[in-house]
Amino acid sequence: MLNENCGLFAVYHKDSSFNVSAQIIEGLIALQHRGQESAGIAVSNGENIQTYKGMGVVNDVFPKEVIKRIKGSFGIGHVKYSTNGFSNYANAEPLTVKYKGEFFSVAHNGQIENSAFLRDLFEEKGTIFFTTSDTELIPHLLVTNLKGAPSTWNPENIAKLIDKHISPSYSLLLLFKNKIIALRDRYGYRPLAICETDDAVYLASEDSAFKFFKLNNSKIREVEPGEMIEINSEGLKSYKINKNNKYRYCFFEHIYFARPDSNIYGDNVHLMREKLGELTAKEHPVEADIIVPVMDSGFSAALGYSKASGIPLELGLMRNKYIGRTFIDPDIQERKLSVRRKLSPVKEVIENKDIVLIDDSMVRGTTMKHIVKMLKENGAKKVHIRIASPMVVNTCYWGIDIPDKKDIIGANKSKEDIKRIVNADSLEFLSLQYLSNYLDVKVANYCFHCFQT
Amino acid sequence: MLNENCGLFAVYHKDSSFNVSAQIIEGLIALQHRGQESAGIAVSNGENIQTYKGMGVVNDVFPKEVIKRIKGSFGIGHVKYSTNGFSNYANAEPLTVKYKGEFFSVAHNGQIENSAFLRDLFEEKGTIFFTTSDTELIPHLLVTNLKGAPSTWNPENIAKLIDKHISPSYSLLLLFKNKIIALRDRYGYRPLAICETDDAVYLASEDSAFKFFKLNNSKIREVEPGEMIEINSEGLKSYKINKNNKYRYCFFEHIYFARPDSNIYGDNVHLMREKLGELTAKEHPVEADIIVPVMDSGFSAALGYSKASGIPLELGLMRNKYIGRTFIDPDIQERKLSVRRKLSPVKEVIENKDIVLIDDSMVRGTTMKHIVKMLKENGAKKVHIRIASPMVVNTCYWGIDIPDKKDIIGANKSKEDIKRIVNADSLEFLSLQYLSNYLDVKVANYCFHCFQT
Amino acid sequence: MLNENCGLFAVYHKDSSFNVSAQIIEGLIALQHRGQESAGIAVSNGENIQTYKGMGVVNDVFPKEVIKRIKGSFGIGHVKYSTNGFSNYANAEPLTVKYKGEFFSVAHNGQIENSAFLRDLFEEKGTIFFTTSDTELIPHLLVTNLKGAPSTWNPENIAKLIDKHISPSYSLLLLFKNKIIALRDRYGYRPLAICETDDAVYLASEDSAFKFFKLNNSKIREVEPGEMIEINSEGLKSYKINKNNKYRYCFFEHIYFARPDSNIYGDNVHLMREKLGELTAKEHPVEADIIVPVMDSGFSAALGYSKASGIPLELGLMRNKYIGRTFIDPDIQERKLSVRRKLSPVKEVIENKDIVLIDDSMVRGTTMKHIVKMLKENGAKKVHIRIASPMVVNTCYWGIDIPDKKDIIGANKSKEDIKRIVNADSLEFLSLQYLSNYLDVKVANYCFHCFQT
Amino acid sequence: MLNENCGLFAVYHKDSSFNVSAQIIEGLIALQHRGQESAGIAVSNGENIQTYKGMGVVNDVFPKEVIKRIKGSFGIGHVKYSTNGFSNYANAEPLTVKYKGEFFSVAHNGQIENSAFLRDLFEEKGTIFFTTSDTELIPHLLVTNLKGAPSTWNPENIAKLIDKHISPSYSLLLLFKNKIIALRDRYGYRPLAICETDDAVYLASEDSAFKFFKLNNSKIREVEPGEMIEINSEGLKSYKINKNNKYRYCFFEHIYFARPDSNIYGDNVHLMREKLGELTAKEHPVEADIIVPVMDSGFSAALGYSKASGIPLELGLMRNKYIGRTFIDPDIQERKLSVRRKLSPVKEVIENKDIVLIDDSMVRGTTMKHIVKMLKENGAKKVHIRIASPMVVNTCYWGIDIPDKKDIIGANKSKEDIKRIVNADSLEFLSLQYLSNYLDVKVANYCFHCFQT
Repeated sequence: MLNENCGLFAVYHKDSSFNVSAQIIEGLIALQHRGQESAGIAVSNGENIQTYKGMGVVNDVFPKEVIKRIKGSFGIGHVKYSTNGFSNYANAEPLTVKYKGEFFSVAHNGQIENSAFLRDLFEEKGTIFFTTSDTELIPHLLVTNLKGAPSTWNPENIAKLIDKHISPSYSLLLLFKNKIIALRDRYGYRPLAICETDDAVYLASEDSAFKFFKLNNSKIREVEPGEMIEINSEGLKSYKINKNNKYRYCFFEHIYFARPDSNIYGDNVHLMREKLGELTAKEHPVEADIIVPVMDSGFSAALGYSKASGIPLELGLMRNKYIGRTFIDPDIQERKLSVRRKLSPVKEVIENKDIVLIDDSMVRGTTMKHIVKMLKENGAKKVHIRIASPMVVNTCYWGIDIPDKKDIIGANKSKEDIKRIVNADSLEFLSLQYLSNYLDVKVANYCFHCFQT
Repeated sequence: MLNENCGLFAVYHKDSSFNVSAQIIEGLIALQHRGQESAGIAVSNGENIQTYKGMGVVNDVFPKEVIKRIKGSFGIGHVKYSTNGFSNYANAEPLTVKYKGEFFSVAHNGQIENSAFLRDLFEEKGTIFFTTSDTELIPHLLVTNLKGAPSTWNPENIAKLIDKHISPSYSLLLLFKNKIIALRDRYGYRPLAICETDDAVYLASEDSAFKFFKLNNSKIREVEPGEMIEINSEGLKSYKINKNNKYRYCFFEHIYFARPDSNIYGDNVHLMREKLGELTAKEHPVEADIIVPVMDSGFSAALGYSKASGIPLELGLMRNKYIGRTFIDPDIQERKLSVRRKLSPVKEVIENKDIVLIDDSMVRGTTMKHIVKMLKENGAKKVHIRIASPMVVNTCYWGIDIPDKKDIIGANKSKEDIKRIVNADSLEFLSLQYLSNYLDVKVANYCFHCFQT
Repeated sequence: MLNENCGLFAVYHKDSSFNVSAQIIEGLIALQHRGQESAGIAVSNGENIQTYKGMGVVNDVFPKEVIKRIKGSFGIGHVKYSTNGFSNYANAEPLTVKYKGEFFSVAHNGQIENSAFLRDLFEEKGTIFFTTSDTELIPHLLVTNLKGAPSTWNPENIAKLIDKHISPSYSLLLLFKNKIIALRDRYGYRPLAICETDDAVYLASEDSAFKFFKLNNSKIREVEPGEMIEINSEGLKSYKINKNNKYRYCFFEHIYFARPDSNIYGDNVHLMREKLGELTAKEHPVEADIIVPVMDSGFSAALGYSKASGIPLELGLMRNKYIGRTFIDPDIQERKLSVRRKLSPVKEVIENKDIVLIDDSMVRGTTMKHIVKMLKENGAKKVHIRIASPMVVNTCYWGIDIPDKKDIIGANKSKEDIKRIVNADSLEFLSLQYLSNYLDVKVANYCFHCFQT
Repeated sequence: MLNENCGLFAVYHKDSSFNVSAQIIEGLIALQHRGQESAGIAVSNGENIQTYKGMGVVNDVFPKEVIKRIKGSFGIGHVKYSTNGFSNYANAEPLTVKYKGEFFSVAHNGQIENSAFLRDLFEEKGTIFFTTSDTELIPHLLVTNLKGAPSTWNPENIAKLIDKHISPSYSLLLLFKNKIIALRDRYGYRPLAICETDDAVYLASEDSAFKFFKLNNSKIREVEPGEMIEINSEGLKSYKINKNNKYRYCFFEHIYFARPDSNIYGDNVHLMREKLGELTAKEHPVEADIIVPVMDSGFSAALGYSKASGIPLELGLMRNKYIGRTFIDPDIQERKLSVRRKLSPVKEVIENKDIVLIDDSMVRGTTMKHIVKMLKENGAKKVHIRIASPMVVNTCYWGIDIPDKKDIIGANKSKEDIKRIVNADSLEFLSLQYLSNYLDVKVANYCFHCFQT
């Protein structure tokens, strides 16, 4: 199993009487888009670590009283991505383990490339696994290589050990009874941001999570690839564990995964998406009456396409806020019901119009087919699809939930075939070449693996 | 207590072996924006009526198995608006009562103007009230005036009785064991649409609810003010109960309440909102760098303002999808937390910009103050507020949840004062005069009571 | 529908700042054996009445915070008996209605004999019914006959009206914003007890409910048949509304329904059951090795039978404390599973023994058949059944959940046939004659309708 | 932390298409008295093991659909004892771990005496602990000593390894993808029974759990101390792993923990308790009017005392079936409320009586004080306490939840002091000497550690 994309949050409050539980939970709510399968927190009061986690979204996992039961002035939190099974509680994070009389906790965002190899290695030594998550490798690595109780381990040694043995991707939070350690892998696949204020230090997968709080004199920056941060009662220290300076920032975070109001890899996500739309407009212009975004994912790119092309953006597809589970039996109703419940065409907007339909990306292509059908049923004359990112042709081993190649439409069909399958009047993707030209020297710092065969 | 704005849905399936429960529930999900306090359905199998309702949103109210327990080929459903109390189950609708051995059910959208008078009248005759909802007046009126079992009552007599005694506003659904009756008040305050297909007849507060289903040969229209519809095993009949032809369509449905993809009073809601934005741009132009909508309510108007003004629309404020209850103690944290959790400023978009901030309406003004503050904290140079509807200066007695005059900012403060309170650089409302000019002859058919002192 | 046997509880605290919610809920827990379908409370603070109720047992219905939300110094509570349907929230009590701007509430234990007649009468006058419970007749009766707001009604008039029009059985609690009224029907079918202390007045269906509290100087007695109690800020008053002195105390309360530690109709329930066992032993002696009670219902009677006969009582059948719903599919498993899950034979006790199996009563006879089978499978040589009450041969119209005659085994089969059906070696019932001889003059005060054809 | 007393259940069905989930769950319900903190099952279909567990009682842990999701023809289940904390999900069993690509599961009843030593040993080798339960030592022991995938491990080697390194007490179930292994420690501290039928093999902590099923030709016996059972597709094999024949059967299982209808160590539990009551009567006779058991724990012993003494048993204290959490604020109410809610005195039975109050054992003594007070408040003239087991003076290290010595009343006070504290008129315990005389040669096979200083 993979450790797919997840959200991390941590607080170290300088006032040891302050309880950070509520703040961590609020931080996780801000990062809920990064994972809805499970949520959890681990909090230290300096002596002991308490952990609380459960399956589902933050609001379902945590009872109100949890903030009275789980107490301490520093701690970490985690939201995990996709639901693959009936119940997978064991994999929920933070993963808290006990060693030499002390608890310590790990929260991980990423996917460890050499996990199968490491598992075999550990099993040869007689290690058993209590979860099916890559994250469990971290504590096993630490206890087999470091002496004494976890709180006495040297932070640099911890970080070097991980850097040496654990293949990226990982953005990691470690909680010991006396400190928090944060570590981002040498390539920086996954984002991780830090915010120092007068009162506390915060860490989050995305800096937008810091906005939930009233922060005094906050200094916000990204934890750098290969950087380790140690926070304890004496303050914050930074170590450069790995000097590698050729990064592999996951570009899919910009395209789809991150919040529009976050800043990652030095850029605002919304503005990057708008730029992608603009580039798409320039590379693949088309004559049309209106731009229609697939809401909400395609909105920023559609704004960019609209500005660059001069074609007005319109709300041709509305996203329904309230859906949840369906009561109609799926066997006796058509399959496209779920698209129909999520997106509603606004007939009066699209009727008799030539439409540029904008989405951020195309992976499986299944939804797009139903959207085009709905648009045409509601009177659209022409539907030109413009995808504001390169065609996905490969899966991902570093944390993004891209399916096996057999389920990636771009890995199996030509652009021309896809156009026919989804019944579009034209279909274009922003090319990797065009995108690279724009990114210029920065291109070397991104991972584009999913766009390359 | 009022019967505030609500959502109605009904199905009469021609195949008496078809169970409509799931369809009614899906219809209510489509209308969930009209009320989240309670939800309920009442379904007839021709002999008996079963009712199921509960507090909360549709997905929480109905267990999956309800569609196996509540069975019948026709029925009605209801979602109710605001949460005023701890538990108000008795007021949930449909309201099902028993008389002469038969159940019948009522679902109501609107607010009965003469309810206090009617209550007194009934109480003098020894009627007790089991709910605090205006809706209960309907069954009391019927049983005190009509003879025999409810299924034998003449539909025209039912409708005339209501038309005569019950002051608008009301859009009503009545379920008897052998038929459905729908009635819209003579002024047409509240919308009500009907959809006839080969298989069934549907009724809904908004026609967008019909899109959830795959409909064959659907004919959709609005139920007219003063019109009564009767649907039974012999088909559908329409009666013009009240010949009044001067209507009072609630304009706030267009401004705020209805879904953008609905059509009410002959117009598409999104296009109307876009037009209101356009009119606002024309009446109150301003020089600025970007248009920022208060998402989601101000989006359609902002599109219109952008098109008319040529100033580009930007995502300067992002709406958080995941919020729910807060874990931070409100007493020890600042009040504006809730705005902060709902809306996130995108600093990179707004920094150093002159902004036109667009919202659909302003009632209390409390949120706006915090939004302006967030924008300025994030570097906005100027914030010009443009409200795409007239200033609200009066409360509503016909179903919209507008507070008492003391809580309406426009009823107590001048525009200049409000500008200062919310700390805007300018503040303008679309004037009623300007709007009226645009609406032209149609102006006579709208209720603008809340905009008039 | 019937209003089957239920539990009532009320508190009027002299200190108007004391909140009685928790006490009423605790009282209902003590009476939980009288009904598990729904539970509810209605509490007055002198000005307003708040009601909270729900489906299920007390512990599931009431969230902990209810005692902070529902506040007042006097109020009433109710637990309702059997589960007949999917959801019958409307019938949960107390039934709170509004009339002339005031709420008032009714909680009822009993079954109104002339309810069909009264319903017709009211419907003729245009009354609609919001529930299918007999209890709803009470408020309709009051408002159609009394003038002014409910709090101004004269308590004696209320009681006389009910005494005149409502046929027993009923033990009733009425809550007005300024008082509590309790009324027991002229025949005293259902028990009702009152407890005066220095601080408060309590009312309960059974006096054992008073034991849950620490009471100072408590004076406990039964409310008399035909007696009305009024409790308000000036204290307690008693009125003899109906002078009838030939009572019809339900004897089934003694046999089965009431708690063993309660006192009803002047006798302790456990001691009465023990006496019934003793009488059965005298009327129907048998030679055997051990007495085995059907736990828990037959325990008291078995003690009596054992003492009178000298045959030792043994734990031959153990009741399982933890059962709940079954996970085994009932279709593929044998029917007797449910008996098997409830009662476990103790083989070592019963093997090679002649057994006297004692139960309190026999209505359907279905369980008994499986019990005898289990005993014989576990080695019992002989099973002599002794039922410590007369054979049930008739249904009940006054509140006990005895099924239709067709499902009463004694109404359809001879004692000899039943013996054969349940495979007993002998079967005897305490005869009504023998019981009557024992009760002597008191016999005239009991209802034995279910024992008489 | 300890692994306190728990319940084990297993099924191996010969028909590989039979799903045993429901049977294991039903078995756990029968053993629910052995633990209410958590419950879980692990089931193999021959290829894969699925685990489902949760906090609380069986009926709360398992949703109905679990038996459709967790499928296989053999598996194990576990209920765990006491609630020590907010949430201790990680400790719920069966504990399923992964090693060399295969899951295997452990369920344990007992307490490992050398657990601290073993933990240290493992930690020195770099083992981390994911739970605070002793059970986790078992899989760590196995993987560090056995080669290859778990399903290939030799059962005898597994058992010998555990026998050699793990100090009793333990009754263990191990589930591999291809077999079930059961092992009882050499001293037999904890019971474990096996039942072979034509269709399946069952294992359970107590044989009464087998009664829940309809079993064909069942052969039931205890797994012997030091015996290992292996069940796979080829049938059942038994191995004598440890030839020790001096046992240490926990006598507290007989006194309190096991179900009365179970047979352990060759004796029926109810009959043993009755015998203990009889011995107590003989050793400590007293003149009195009635015997009153503390229900339900003292019932069997009271029957024995009654028979031996000739004093009639009476229901002087009734146990309330419905209690659950309290709504009364414990701070403002007296402490003895909880006793008052659990046990109700029957005044009419105890008034003016000299009472022999019988309980099975006395550990803390706190409840007894309140019981005596209630009895005297209700008119008891004299209360003679007779405890049908020796005075507990020491804690337990082998699985019974006896508190630290400081909380054991018998370890800190003389019998005379206790008598005074609980305000009894006399107090006697069955002496260990008297009990030993009765047990005769069998005495050597019991652990009486808690009765010995």
